[in-house]
Amino acid sequence: MSVFDASSTSRRAPESSLPISRRRLLLGSAGAMASVSLLGLSPLARSEEPKTLPDYVRWKNANDVIVHSANTIETERGAIGSGVVTNSDKLYVRNNLPAPNADVVADRNAWKITLEGVNSPQTLTLGELKKMGVETVTAVLQCSGNGRAYFEHGPGGTQWGTGAAGCLVWTGVPLRDVVARLGGVKPDMNYITSTGGETLPAGLDPKTIMVERSVPVRALDQALLAWQMNDEPVPLAHGGPLRMVIPGYFGVNNVKYVERVAFTEGQSDAKIQASGYRIRPIGEKGAPGQPSMWEMPVKSWVTAPLTTASKGRNLIYGVAFGGINAVNQVEVSADGGETWKSARFLGPDMGRYAWRPFVVAMDLSAGDHRIVSRATDTEGNTQPPTRTENERGYGNASWKDHGVTVTVS
Amino acid sequence: MSVFDASSTSRRAPESSLPISRRRLLLGSAGAMASVSLLGLSPLARSEEPKTLPDYVRWKNANDVIVHSANTIETERGAIGSGVVTNSDKLYVRNNLPAPNADVVADRNAWKITLEGVNSPQTLTLGELKKMGVETVTAVLQCSGNGRAYFEHGPGGTQWGTGAAGCLVWTGVPLRDVVARLGGVKPDMNYITSTGGETLPAGLDPKTIMVERSVPVRALDQALLAWQMNDEPVPLAHGGPLRMVIPGYFGVNNVKYVERVAFTEGQSDAKIQASGYRIRPIGEKGAPGQPSMWEMPVKSWVTAPLTTASKGRNLIYGVAFGGINAVNQVEVSADGGETWKSARFLGPDMGRYAWRPFVVAMDLSAGDHRIVSRATDTEGNTQPPTRTENERGYGNASWKDHGVTVTVS
Repeated sequence: MSVFDASSTSRRAPESSLPISRRRLLLGSAGAMASVSLLGLSPLARSEEPKTLPDYVRWKNANDVIVHSANTIETERGAIGSGVVTNSDKLYVRNNLPAPNADVVADRNAWKITLEGVNSPQTLTLGELKKMGVETVTAVLQCSGNGRAYFEHGPGGTQWGTGAAGCLVWTGVPLRDVVARLGGVKPDMNYITSTGGETLPAGLDPKTIMVERSVPVRALDQALLAWQMNDEPVPLAHGGPLRMVIPGYFGVNNVKYVERVAFTEGQSDAKIQASGYRIRPIGEKGAPGQPSMWEMPVKSWVTAPLTTASKGRNLIYGVAFGGINAVNQVEVSADGGETWKSARFLGPDMGRYAWRPFVVAMDLSAGDHRIVSRATDTEGNTQPPTRTENERGYGNASWKDHGVTVTVS
Repeated sequence: MSVFDASSTSRRAPESSLPISRRRLLLGSAGAMASVSLLGLSPLARSEEPKTLPDYVRWKNANDVIVHSANTIETERGAIGSGVVTNSDKLYVRNNLPAPNADVVADRNAWKITLEGVNSPQTLTLGELKKMGVETVTAVLQCSGNGRAYFEHGPGGTQWGTGAAGCLVWTGVPLRDVVARLGGVKPDMNYITSTGGETLPAGLDPKTIMVERSVPVRALDQALLAWQMNDEPVPLAHGGPLRMVIPGYFGVNNVKYVERVAFTEGQSDAKIQASGYRIRPIGEKGAPGQPSMWEMPVKSWVTAPLTTASKGRNLIYGVAFGGINAVNQVEVSADGGETWKSARFLGPDMGRYAWRPFVVAMDLSAGDHRIVSRATDTEGNTQPPTRTENERGYGNASWKDHGVTVTVS
């Protein structure tokens, strides 16, 4: 409640839907940079813990977020309201490396990016990019590990509930416009490979820690080199001065401080691409043949009520998105999936890659209710009941896992 | 640059387009609450003045706003980016009376509102309203006096440039849904009269200072009793816990801390309605027969560049809205209106009452250019070249007045 004088205590309830097994002290996932997670030991621990925001994100609203570590900060489930855009001050943070020194945003237009694998390779400044074209796209940004807390085999890494996701308005130049000015993509290039401009810690093999991600060249349809987020220059913590935004793709592909974009025949051999962010069987090592965390599937979750409600008519709220496709429909169940009721979308449609808040009125009787939501995209893909088990706990879209148990009295 | 690490210095330039005659020390417009305006004496005064935000809006971004007085705070023209929603932390403030004590947002759901002029008059709590229905609407909020600084006869009141306007996402219950539950509107009621819940200063005739506004009953189509703005509970400074929002209508009709909504045969006899906020000839007193500041007309303005640009290709940005109608088209001229070029809208369409950012690429030669924009709504109404002269300096939609002179080198 820092900057706003909000009072709606019910939306600030701890996430009691987290399995007990996950409510233990866990190490953060940011390697050498990780600090001890603040995810506590009891159901109330989260809201009772003092929350300390690191300096580079001091401007965030501390009461809307859960600080897991210096580089992993989650949006409270109940902090998502019925608006269509996620305010920057409650957007999650997940940085694989510490943000660069703030010098890089002292003169944003001087930021340089090198384009390779095109017929006329070139290094351009952000100031030059800004004159090439502009588009504004609303898109969900979601960490691959969002929903990891619901896995039961105990995958390491940040124990995200629902809050490693937000819906942002991005402004930048379409990558295809830049490529067109540079003579087009060279033949036989299958991937767009983006490299982040973080300063790498000394003494470690760069390939093991650098942020360099490859996505299929089909993403050229929607890829954006973005300098604005939510009507402001992209904050340093979120990849400013320049971020690769690939609407419909998991967060890791949206490379921050992007300093190189190469069209390449193969994928990057950096660890984060070659073996990291892969769907692999539990107990197995990561390898290039496993599915990479690229296009996001359809997903939804309830945002209110989360813990308690009064009996009788209730409005049940949530958010839904189609990932790589537009979302088409959401159903809600108050009996754990036995019976379903169609929800309606609330507010304007921000486009294919945006999420849509939804609402449905339901009469709730006294007692415990398992409230779940299930979304379907425009291609007819429906959110599955169960998650795909995998070693790292990626890509959880299970509607069962994302339900909440609400006590009605 | 407080919360964000923005560096784009060019967008923070002072508003050199203000006529010199307006760059003088002026008293604020908030009556007994007014303090001396910070609008300075020289073209650079604005950016050099220390900016002190009053406590109740300490959470605003000081570098994105101009503090005219404790109750009148303007958004910097260049602080509007290419996003579609105006962040709350840079939204203008214009309160006719000081905000109530923060106690009123300590238990938001306990806020009470009385409905009259319906077949079953009733007092409802905000908690009860929240169960009646919900809608999310994006709408421009604009002060009647926005653009007053461009009038030349020297109307008193805050010297707003373009920044007494923003585009917000509102969530609340449609007033028509509430009325339907209360048996409908009584016959022969022509107005919706809303009363604000401010504490009135003692010793003054309440009718002379209270905020009570009447709008034609046709506004029932879109009127919303709103508890959320931009995905957060409505901040106290902006009318929380509950605000009457009438999309398409000037700001004054969007009554804050609304505690009474009455369907009435005639208009309120409070001064703010009976003689205030009227379009009246210069030198005449306000009177009920004059046009009231209700529906907003079509309007637009450029947001970048504002002062300087480099010769060659430039992207020119701005915002446009249709007021009571949707906006349909925008043209931009770089020669003061001699020749025009169609702009394109940027980003998603948020609906009839929202504004739309626009952009157009233009080649600019060295020298001074008068850059102006001209919008047309879906009914074919085009923004006029000149303002309607009136005593109080209301409703300025002149495209000539809102142009900027940009030095290209």
